[in-house]
Amino acid sequence: MRISLDRQSEVPLYLQIKKNLRQAILSGGLPADTRLPSSRQLARDLGVNRITVDTAYAELEAEGLVYSRMGSGTYVLPLLEPIKTHTTSSHPVWPAWQQELAKNNPARTGNSALNRIRSTEKRQWIDFSVGVGDERLFPEDEFRKVLQRVMRQDGVDAMTYGDVCGYAPLRQTISQIFASQGLLISPDQILITSGSQQALALVSQVLLQPGDTVFVESPTYGYALVLFQSHHVRIMSVPVDDGGMRVDELEKMLQQATPKLIYTIPNFHNPTGSCLNSHRRRQLITLADRHNVPIMEDDFVGDLRYDGQAQPALKSLDPGGRVIYVSTFSKMLMPGLRVGFLSAEGPVFDSLVESKRVHDLATSNLFQHALHSYITVGRYQAHLRVSCQVYRKRRDTILLAIRRYLPADVQFTPPAGGFFLWMKLPEGCVAENLLEASARQGVLFAPGNEFFVSPQEGASYVRLGFASLTPEEIEEGMRRLGKVMFLTKHPNPL
Amino acid sequence: MRISLDRQSEVPLYLQIKKNLRQAILSGGLPADTRLPSSRQLARDLGVNRITVDTAYAELEAEGLVYSRMGSGTYVLPLLEPIKTHTTSSHPVWPAWQQELAKNNPARTGNSALNRIRSTEKRQWIDFSVGVGDERLFPEDEFRKVLQRVMRQDGVDAMTYGDVCGYAPLRQTISQIFASQGLLISPDQILITSGSQQALALVSQVLLQPGDTVFVESPTYGYALVLFQSHHVRIMSVPVDDGGMRVDELEKMLQQATPKLIYTIPNFHNPTGSCLNSHRRRQLITLADRHNVPIMEDDFVGDLRYDGQAQPALKSLDPGGRVIYVSTFSKMLMPGLRVGFLSAEGPVFDSLVESKRVHDLATSNLFQHALHSYITVGRYQAHLRVSCQVYRKRRDTILLAIRRYLPADVQFTPPAGGFFLWMKLPEGCVAENLLEASARQGVLFAPGNEFFVSPQEGASYVRLGFASLTPEEIEEGMRRLGKVMFLTKHPNPL
Repeated sequence: MRISLDRQSEVPLYLQIKKNLRQAILSGGLPADTRLPSSRQLARDLGVNRITVDTAYAELEAEGLVYSRMGSGTYVLPLLEPIKTHTTSSHPVWPAWQQELAKNNPARTGNSALNRIRSTEKRQWIDFSVGVGDERLFPEDEFRKVLQRVMRQDGVDAMTYGDVCGYAPLRQTISQIFASQGLLISPDQILITSGSQQALALVSQVLLQPGDTVFVESPTYGYALVLFQSHHVRIMSVPVDDGGMRVDELEKMLQQATPKLIYTIPNFHNPTGSCLNSHRRRQLITLADRHNVPIMEDDFVGDLRYDGQAQPALKSLDPGGRVIYVSTFSKMLMPGLRVGFLSAEGPVFDSLVESKRVHDLATSNLFQHALHSYITVGRYQAHLRVSCQVYRKRRDTILLAIRRYLPADVQFTPPAGGFFLWMKLPEGCVAENLLEASARQGVLFAPGNEFFVSPQEGASYVRLGFASLTPEEIEEGMRRLGKVMFLTKHPNPL
Repeated sequence: MRISLDRQSEVPLYLQIKKNLRQAILSGGLPADTRLPSSRQLARDLGVNRITVDTAYAELEAEGLVYSRMGSGTYVLPLLEPIKTHTTSSHPVWPAWQQELAKNNPARTGNSALNRIRSTEKRQWIDFSVGVGDERLFPEDEFRKVLQRVMRQDGVDAMTYGDVCGYAPLRQTISQIFASQGLLISPDQILITSGSQQALALVSQVLLQPGDTVFVESPTYGYALVLFQSHHVRIMSVPVDDGGMRVDELEKMLQQATPKLIYTIPNFHNPTGSCLNSHRRRQLITLADRHNVPIMEDDFVGDLRYDGQAQPALKSLDPGGRVIYVSTFSKMLMPGLRVGFLSAEGPVFDSLVESKRVHDLATSNLFQHALHSYITVGRYQAHLRVSCQVYRKRRDTILLAIRRYLPADVQFTPPAGGFFLWMKLPEGCVAENLLEASARQGVLFAPGNEFFVSPQEGASYVRLGFASLTPEEIEEGMRRLGKVMFLTKHPNPL
């Protein structure tokens, strides 16, 4: 192989060799599977040290352009660009089972208006559709140090499969955090999951069969609906008002159908932001018990309260084994950690543990070690205090901004905590159309459709998530949204 | 509050205060919910600086003994020891739905002979039951540095929800690794999962309904069986020999039943260690295609080959959309990472992505960033070379040790790669009894039962995992096992 080297150049020889080979590979001059000369051979050909060639090869290998096979030499890899499965290039006929699947399982979430907009345009959004807290509040440096320390201290231990129920000391910490909120739960009754979404999935797997009935609030968390739909169950909706689930309606519905599960978000409900009042909490437990129906209590932001008095968790009213409690660190701390948990007792807990095992064996052990090392009850409470201060201010900002910039005939109830404000649009204003228009102004929100079993019920609602945006972003976002709403109402301002 | 302080002592005052309060809390002298005096007040009472008291309180809080409520003071937490849900202490009557669950879903894995022994006795085992590689080979320091760098560089980005399909650059790396093994898969057809176990779970969720039929190899991976059972499907077993799945038997079975899935482990099969020969690979694809049945190819250790020639992946023979390929970094690198992946095309890929979303939204983003940063094709190949060298030696060691220490009438085929050696015990020797006896000598292995739909079929088999033990441990373990087998055969050596 002949490579012309410039020995007067400031570019090191190994880099010259590398660049030369790189170009030959990228241009197709050295096609895939070509065996490069041995480094000994090439060094001799070029009159350079063998280490120089080895270094060049190592860099090409690191870039994924070549690979070395033990004892057999270095080969050119196929280029990434033209890598396509034969199938995608030739538009194959899918087997019949695939065609069947395409008919029966129309993908839902990927086709939502929001996902469509997000995937077609990359820009800096003012994004009220987000359902998480502010990543900027995360104590990044501190957590990095903790992770570092844990890896040093626990070493390989933190990197192996852990207990299927989760890292025991972390479960103890969770139990203590519960205790500080008046909820007595033994660490043995806690199962760590990959975010609260997995907890929902495990409960569904254990309790639901195709054809079963599930009661949910209407509206409710969109991915819970998609999850239940994937289990081919009948979903029936219990209406929600400012006091949370309409338990009187629930009672009527229980006369007509016996669900296998009641799914509820009693605190700072997604999407409405409402809280189940304390009277209804007791009624709900009593009804579920009388009708022999398990309750799944999704308490994803239960302790982010900005005003008023905390309500007891349904779990704390549970006479024993009636309520499966689900929560998460993702919303409070960092979504990317994917650490949630559930608590339950009785045979269902064993079934949930078993289900966790077959779903993914266990949740990433290292993060659990790190979380345990990072979170003490005190630190959790401190983080909570700061989060509440910051998010309360944002809630107040969005309330003021709505009054200032949006038409007077939007309807909403100020939320007392959590992430969401649920708003009814003025007569004739359709959320998905508004989204198209506001996206052009760089503003996103969650249209109401995705929170209902029958999407059209949500056509005139929007969910505004305010926790992840700064007051300035909130102000600017509402200003733009107001402008869009005004223009939509008065399409020809001239 | 009166605390006696020793001002002559070398113990700092804040520690004296802390110890004193700690004892009072642990002894019950300060019961839960007691409000501690304000730090200002206590500092005055004791004649110390207020910071001294604050420090003592902060340490108590970090230990989970007290918590502070904003603006309201510091309170004693309930002690962890006596925390029990009312339900576990009072042996409640579970609701009817729980009793039903206990009847229909007897937990299986938790009750296995192996798990029973492990949970009753904590000791240093020589553990041949392990199904992973050697954690000691993991480049711990290097990976820690990578993780550190990624957290600095990508910061909060690495800690948010990522793409549901997984971190795009990591999917590119995987595509390149595939390419280096002759398998052309576009990054767009790769879905990152929480270990390969989750990939199995997603495929099951998408393809299986209660009452459906699944074909598996007999024996096969135990947690796959438990997973399928949790979907309430009928499991039918295709026998395996030294050439892998008996495709001739499969053909007969396909005359009788049409399964919704064929699950196969073609390389270094779990538990038998056998490889599907190349003729049968082509037959299998053809049969599955003719009968319109999807294949799930579980390639958990496919590239850990110690002798002989690599076979093409089933996926590489796929005419398009027939094979769902599943693999993992857990086995090669570190189980605690929980990063696996699957590849498929057509409508089923979209359904799998959708299923991933409802199962846990996405896999931990930080580890994906770190893995991407750590793994290049070259590094992967290098790690593979080292692993093969190390594990080949261990495989050779166990073969020699079996010949040296075990009775001559054990039967096995030396595996050409992977983690497992599958052994038939001498006539009359029952694996679970042998396990009881060998556990007393500190040696564990996986009894054959857990790999069969009808556990008794495995009664005279054991699976020996050799990859995670050093040659010395393997030698010593086989010596002890041999002794136990000799004693079992000749219970009264006198």
